[in-house]
Amino acid sequence: MTGEAEAEIRKLIDDWATAVRAKDIDGVIAHFAADVVGFDLAPPLHYAGTDALRQSLEAWFPTFRGPVGYEIRNLHVTAAHDVAFCCSFNRISGTRTDGEATDVWVRSTVGLRKLDGRWKVTHEHASVPFYMDGSYRAAVDLEP
Amino acid sequence: MTGEAEAEIRKLIDDWATAVRAKDIDGVIAHFAADVVGFDLAPPLHYAGTDALRQSLEAWFPTFRGPVGYEIRNLHVTAAHDVAFCCSFNRISGTRTDGEATDVWVRSTVGLRKLDGRWKVTHEHASVPFYMDGSYRAAVDLEP
Repeated sequence: MTGEAEAEIRKLIDDWATAVRAKDIDGVIAHFAADVVGFDLAPPLHYAGTDALRQSLEAWFPTFRGPVGYEIRNLHVTAAHDVAFCCSFNRISGTRTDGEATDVWVRSTVGLRKLDGRWKVTHEHASVPFYMDGSYRAAVDLEP
Repeated sequence: MTGEAEAEIRKLIDDWATAVRAKDIDGVIAHFAADVVGFDLAPPLHYAGTDALRQSLEAWFPTFRGPVGYEIRNLHVTAAHDVAFCCSFNRISGTRTDGEATDVWVRSTVGLRKLDGRWKVTHEHASVPFYMDGSYRAAVDLEP
């Protein structure tokens, strides 16, 4: 565990969040390794690579009217010299272009490697749980 | 990245899966750090600690008639000397005590630390995505 690595990763997560709020696709993707494997909120089960991530962001960002609200809470970082992972609760909020309000807390886990002296996200996993009451409904109404 | 660490973690994941199949609660928990933070399939957003994990397993395992089917596919491990993370697709299957058949592919991300010479799971995240078609239905019908 190194404090310097933790500080670098907290900065990366902060910069990533700033890029999401600004709908800055290049700003988001700059933090990802080209061969990232992601488990996203929406199907399919996974995406592979930053081209797929770009397509996803190109489809998602325009569904918001104005900026995306993106708050990161309880960020917990576990870091070695060149491998790290972190987890947090992320609040996604804003108004959709159809006028609907979105406000959902998402669980986020991120895996990183230090490649050529820079931390890159090589894995991300975002989700909400789902109700086991037979409804199979995504639990988009929970708060940390 | 160390090959020895990767081999140790693959063994841990394999032993963990064997314990799940056998509904062996102590066998599962032996692989977890006491202060694990988990993002599970069912609400709430997170659980904290092995006591909470034990309660969850005590409620979940008896819902299966006989053993739990638990297959791990595409396990990808990223490991430093004492910090690691891995991801995979895990198939949970079996017959519930009410006669219903369960067969679902889950995305799994696991964070680990080597503590006192032994790898322990300090974070786990299991989920399925959900459909963004307005139904908010958990996507329990996808295959990797």
